[in-house]
Amino acid sequence: MVKKIPLSFRVGFAPAADAVPEEFVPASVPGNAQLDWANAHGYPDYRFADNFRLFSWMEDVFWVYKARIPATEVSGDERVFFTTAGIDYEFEILADGERLLYQEGMFTPVDLDLTAYVKSGTELTVVVYPAPKIPGLPADRSQAAASVKPPVSYGWDWHPRLIPSGLYEEVRLEVRPASFIRDAETRYLLTDGYRKADLTVDVSLSRPGGRVRWTLLDKKGEAVLCEERPGEESLSFSLKLPEVELWWPNEFGEQTLYTAVTELFDPLGNKLDEKRQRIGFKDLELKMHPRAGMDAETFPKGRNHAPVQMMVNGRRIFAKGSNWVHPEIFIGTITRETYEKQIELAKEAHFNLFRVWGGGIVNKESFFDLCDEKGILVWQEFPLACNNYVGTPHYLKILDRESESIIRRVRRHVSLAIWCGGNELFNDWSGMDEQSLALRLLASNCYRMDPMRPYMNTSPLFGMGHGNYVFRYPDGRDVYEVMPSCRRSAYTEFGCPGMSDPDILRSIIPGEELFPPKPGGAYEAHHAFGAWEGNTWLCPETVEYYFGESRTLEELVERTQFLQARGYVAIFEEARRQWPVSSMSLNWCYNEPWPSAANNNLLSYGGRPKPAYYAVKESCRPQMVSARVRKFLWKKGELFTAELFLLNDLFDALPAQRVRAVLRLPDGERELCLWNAPETAPTSHQEGPAAILRLGDYADCTLTLSVEAEGRPELSSVYEFLYRNPEHGKEKSEGAAALNQ
Amino acid sequence: MVKKIPLSFRVGFAPAADAVPEEFVPASVPGNAQLDWANAHGYPDYRFADNFRLFSWMEDVFWVYKARIPATEVSGDERVFFTTAGIDYEFEILADGERLLYQEGMFTPVDLDLTAYVKSGTELTVVVYPAPKIPGLPADRSQAAASVKPPVSYGWDWHPRLIPSGLYEEVRLEVRPASFIRDAETRYLLTDGYRKADLTVDVSLSRPGGRVRWTLLDKKGEAVLCEERPGEESLSFSLKLPEVELWWPNEFGEQTLYTAVTELFDPLGNKLDEKRQRIGFKDLELKMHPRAGMDAETFPKGRNHAPVQMMVNGRRIFAKGSNWVHPEIFIGTITRETYEKQIELAKEAHFNLFRVWGGGIVNKESFFDLCDEKGILVWQEFPLACNNYVGTPHYLKILDRESESIIRRVRRHVSLAIWCGGNELFNDWSGMDEQSLALRLLASNCYRMDPMRPYMNTSPLFGMGHGNYVFRYPDGRDVYEVMPSCRRSAYTEFGCPGMSDPDILRSIIPGEELFPPKPGGAYEAHHAFGAWEGNTWLCPETVEYYFGESRTLEELVERTQFLQARGYVAIFEEARRQWPVSSMSLNWCYNEPWPSAANNNLLSYGGRPKPAYYAVKESCRPQMVSARVRKFLWKKGELFTAELFLLNDLFDALPAQRVRAVLRLPDGERELCLWNAPETAPTSHQEGPAAILRLGDYADCTLTLSVEAEGRPELSSVYEFLYRNPEHGKEKSEGAAALNQ
Repeated sequence: MVKKIPLSFRVGFAPAADAVPEEFVPASVPGNAQLDWANAHGYPDYRFADNFRLFSWMEDVFWVYKARIPATEVSGDERVFFTTAGIDYEFEILADGERLLYQEGMFTPVDLDLTAYVKSGTELTVVVYPAPKIPGLPADRSQAAASVKPPVSYGWDWHPRLIPSGLYEEVRLEVRPASFIRDAETRYLLTDGYRKADLTVDVSLSRPGGRVRWTLLDKKGEAVLCEERPGEESLSFSLKLPEVELWWPNEFGEQTLYTAVTELFDPLGNKLDEKRQRIGFKDLELKMHPRAGMDAETFPKGRNHAPVQMMVNGRRIFAKGSNWVHPEIFIGTITRETYEKQIELAKEAHFNLFRVWGGGIVNKESFFDLCDEKGILVWQEFPLACNNYVGTPHYLKILDRESESIIRRVRRHVSLAIWCGGNELFNDWSGMDEQSLALRLLASNCYRMDPMRPYMNTSPLFGMGHGNYVFRYPDGRDVYEVMPSCRRSAYTEFGCPGMSDPDILRSIIPGEELFPPKPGGAYEAHHAFGAWEGNTWLCPETVEYYFGESRTLEELVERTQFLQARGYVAIFEEARRQWPVSSMSLNWCYNEPWPSAANNNLLSYGGRPKPAYYAVKESCRPQMVSARVRKFLWKKGELFTAELFLLNDLFDALPAQRVRAVLRLPDGERELCLWNAPETAPTSHQEGPAAILRLGDYADCTLTLSVEAEGRPELSSVYEFLYRNPEHGKEKSEGAAALNQ
Repeated sequence: MVKKIPLSFRVGFAPAADAVPEEFVPASVPGNAQLDWANAHGYPDYRFADNFRLFSWMEDVFWVYKARIPATEVSGDERVFFTTAGIDYEFEILADGERLLYQEGMFTPVDLDLTAYVKSGTELTVVVYPAPKIPGLPADRSQAAASVKPPVSYGWDWHPRLIPSGLYEEVRLEVRPASFIRDAETRYLLTDGYRKADLTVDVSLSRPGGRVRWTLLDKKGEAVLCEERPGEESLSFSLKLPEVELWWPNEFGEQTLYTAVTELFDPLGNKLDEKRQRIGFKDLELKMHPRAGMDAETFPKGRNHAPVQMMVNGRRIFAKGSNWVHPEIFIGTITRETYEKQIELAKEAHFNLFRVWGGGIVNKESFFDLCDEKGILVWQEFPLACNNYVGTPHYLKILDRESESIIRRVRRHVSLAIWCGGNELFNDWSGMDEQSLALRLLASNCYRMDPMRPYMNTSPLFGMGHGNYVFRYPDGRDVYEVMPSCRRSAYTEFGCPGMSDPDILRSIIPGEELFPPKPGGAYEAHHAFGAWEGNTWLCPETVEYYFGESRTLEELVERTQFLQARGYVAIFEEARRQWPVSSMSLNWCYNEPWPSAANNNLLSYGGRPKPAYYAVKESCRPQMVSARVRKFLWKKGELFTAELFLLNDLFDALPAQRVRAVLRLPDGERELCLWNAPETAPTSHQEGPAAILRLGDYADCTLTLSVEAEGRPELSSVYEFLYRNPEHGKEKSEGAAALNQ
């Protein structure tokens, strides 16, 4: 069997690939060289103020990792491998000064046979090159447009300029018998109405000989299929699984996982190696919505909306979720635990889809393992975002290998729903299109290597929509006004900003800058000002428009968080009310990789829910009462109107309900209407009556609308709107003044 | 050297693949079995009335071709091959009853080594299976949705139901030396601003040995590059061509053609084999137009218009042309001469692009040779149209091989501009989309095998437009009203119908049905009625709306042909005036495969121009004066308005012009305006003043607008509109009557 030998690395930097660092510090592996250096030299926390700028120089040096091979017993024809899932980004590997490998690309694993080069005491060196940059461009994402390095760390409107690199995945030596399993993969096609599966098993061995045993274990660990074959170097066989227990996304059924075990035995029956692969059985197609031809109805006729509605195991579903970004700037520090907390919160929020946006990394294996387990589908983009990735021969060569490596790894996960070329590539600010060679290459590789998995070139495609990312638009309309007039097949990005909690702000903003927030300084470094259009993401004029001046930091934070929560309720629910034309609602963004001052995220850094998280969780309940209210701010004399809906995402019908709409006003509660709603069919919704009330003369207040399902409080919903009446009280006192005269 | 031995075939039919036909008739090869049988049995002309229906039974039989191998001297290690560019559609080949090959697919060549099976007198049999049909569907194109058989012959709105099959390409025996060239292909990439080329030569030999000499001849036949290599079985080498004379589309420059000659010599220096490939050096990209983001300007943002603007050798051009359909129902009868006349007419009409629509065949080699020579770019679709080609394993397997064969053959032609998956696949009536496996396969094959050639999934894509196909819309607007309000990136299909000339009608319509045309009978069989929506393609109510009742066939034909010509002028020129948003204008359709009674074509069957051809030719002059007039029918008192333009498609500036607009009225000519136009930049246009006149009281007449470039009559244009005044004369006579009282 394979023996694993950990390596202990030191890291230093040098001005050239062949120069010797003046100093080495202990390296955390997995980790990032930049953070190792900062920790060893007592750098202040990069998350505070603009300390991240202290790391700038680290982009342009060579990081040199060194480790000595410990005393290792290697007997007979055993072989020694240096193995890791990836090294970020361009690097070479040397043994006692001899260069054994040069590679560009962080997603292609390294599995380097060192047997001929090493002995106990051999010095292994990994030289990591400077961050790839197109020369002559400003220090922003455009520098990343000629590499497969994720562009986000070059600076984004919610991510500082801070580019990590190095040994970000586990690195170890493995002593393997001469015969070992290079790879074993089981793939399937569901047949017979998703009841059975045709399996294909591909096994490659380091050399022929011995016997291979392949076993499929069900969720209880019991063998349901088994096959033994003579050990050929490359082995492929097919089997039929006569009965399949399907994997379902969160809330549509169980996340049943099987395990395929591939074992290699020598002629005497001794086990030499074993590989395990978890398998979930699922089919997922992207379909056009039923009105996809609505834009092609008049001459000259155009095309139908692009397909984006997910059909899972033959059932069309509404996809609820968010845009996932990796949870740490220093990706080497991400662990299964980092992921687990945040993915569990997504499950609890009734989410079933993450869009893993192309600006960031393809996450580590534990991310996909957790999504497999928790039923969160993954829309996986390749590392292209908001740039024009020109198809030069060099770029295409790297992209070809990197994308093959990504596909080969991730296609094994049942949670993988969709491949996508990258983010917003078919927009002016990127300038790519269907003819871009990089996208033609990705489409071809996905078809060749994973044909049954949908591939889309980018988001948005025709019919889909991105944005906006503010509560109140520059034209004065709020999201409650805008959303009902939209008609998109999928809302794959939209946002409402809110501030981080005061204690987080105190941990990143110097005390003297804390209140009131101002542009420049730490708030701007943490994306409260000038991050994007206008005063994003704090949007102080919006807060002031609704609430007037804020007197304390706590008050300001609370108000922005209130608006964020209310805005997300409007968008998530309206997208659902537009089913089946709309079938996807993914806010920008779910989490964040460092503590922001203000951002569109639902989870603060480290996975702490903002108030918006809880509001979204309510709006994503699979069965619920929902109210469409067409504006947020109300005035005296206006007809407050709430259009009532019952939403049902599930495969079960929602029984008949009595629904009551109640508006809480300063002078008491008013029941606006009672709706005797019949049964709501599966994956469907129904529209009820509109609840209407003319608003009287009150002082400024919050209007609370409660839509209650009788006897089913878990279906009921509560909404909050603002009522503003600057004239209130004035007339009365003027009247009183007049009487007094 | 290779010896070619013609074969003489007979053909008969049988009810099963292994049944023996009762009767054989002489077979024309290349040709079609159905026509051979009809000719031998004195069938009436399939083009007359509904005689094509006599061929229906022929769809479902097996056509059995037989030929005896003539006395053939085969010496030493020579080999005998049965070779053809394709057999339509599903077939098997037998030698003396032994089955040697079974194949489905008409575009994959057959090159069958018969050496072991044949001697003089051996009987070769080719059994062609019945036309592929999905069982249980009506007799229309939907039956073709599971095969790579072109669907048009299953019936279209301008093509009768008549499905040819058989040996439609040349078939011969070849006696080859043991060493011969299997294939030799030279490919290139233009470099250094289109001034130089990197060449790659791939040669495969039947067996290693001897020497290979590769020579590049320039257009005068002089060698400009030469390379000799030892004869390996598979040989690949690269060369640099330091100076390139580019190939240009019609009217943008010369159609310079080089020739690559690959010769194989035995060790003694005797030439064993030779292959020639003509090469034109051209680069063509599809680009987005400058306002491609105009639909993505508001939130939620969508995507940019798809790229469709052709950039040839670094210059953006306006593409003018038409939709080509194959010029004979019986494709086996098409020769170079059939193609040549029609392609020459396209060149004379200033066309530079044919869209070869996916309903039909991929044309024979001579079609592409002629397009190479005459500078007509080819937009080549794969044989998919207006159906949902479901990606079953069987269909994908055939499509995979057929598309590879098509790509491998056609990519060698410089005229090939664009690959396209097929026609109108992203519309409701087809139901395919980006996720359709057939299109993902085609995209992948085109990228793998011809990466520098643009590939698009279908037409229309986002931004492009198809239709309408009538002069006057159901809502009462005419094409002069509709077109200026459109804003499409490419008009890749649009039509105006007109009748065939009276002598053609007399050759296809029985005398008693000739006039007036009525639905049912021969007119309907020839698509004058009920072909598509409404009374297409005759549209009698449109003719009557403009002209009243027609008294003779000649008058009716003239009127429909007049409307067709006027309609095409409106569309072709408006598309050009919308440059650079619009960059393509391709009417439906150019030619026809049998004589129609009425159709949207410019060339009648056999290549005879209709009046519309000459009108379109005028509207496609690369430099010209053009007038936008926003309706066709005018009345008393209306302000006749002509917006003047100078159009310049060429790379040279159009010098300053004095332009005069003159309207010819019943009471004489009126000069409406004089425009002193400055120079018009290359590939550009300029808008001038509007020429305006209030229309007086005349009898019904034709208004003739002449826009004249002083001293440059070749730039001047003449337009005709209708003036209708039903009250004219009535008042006068009423007044006279009153006076008389």
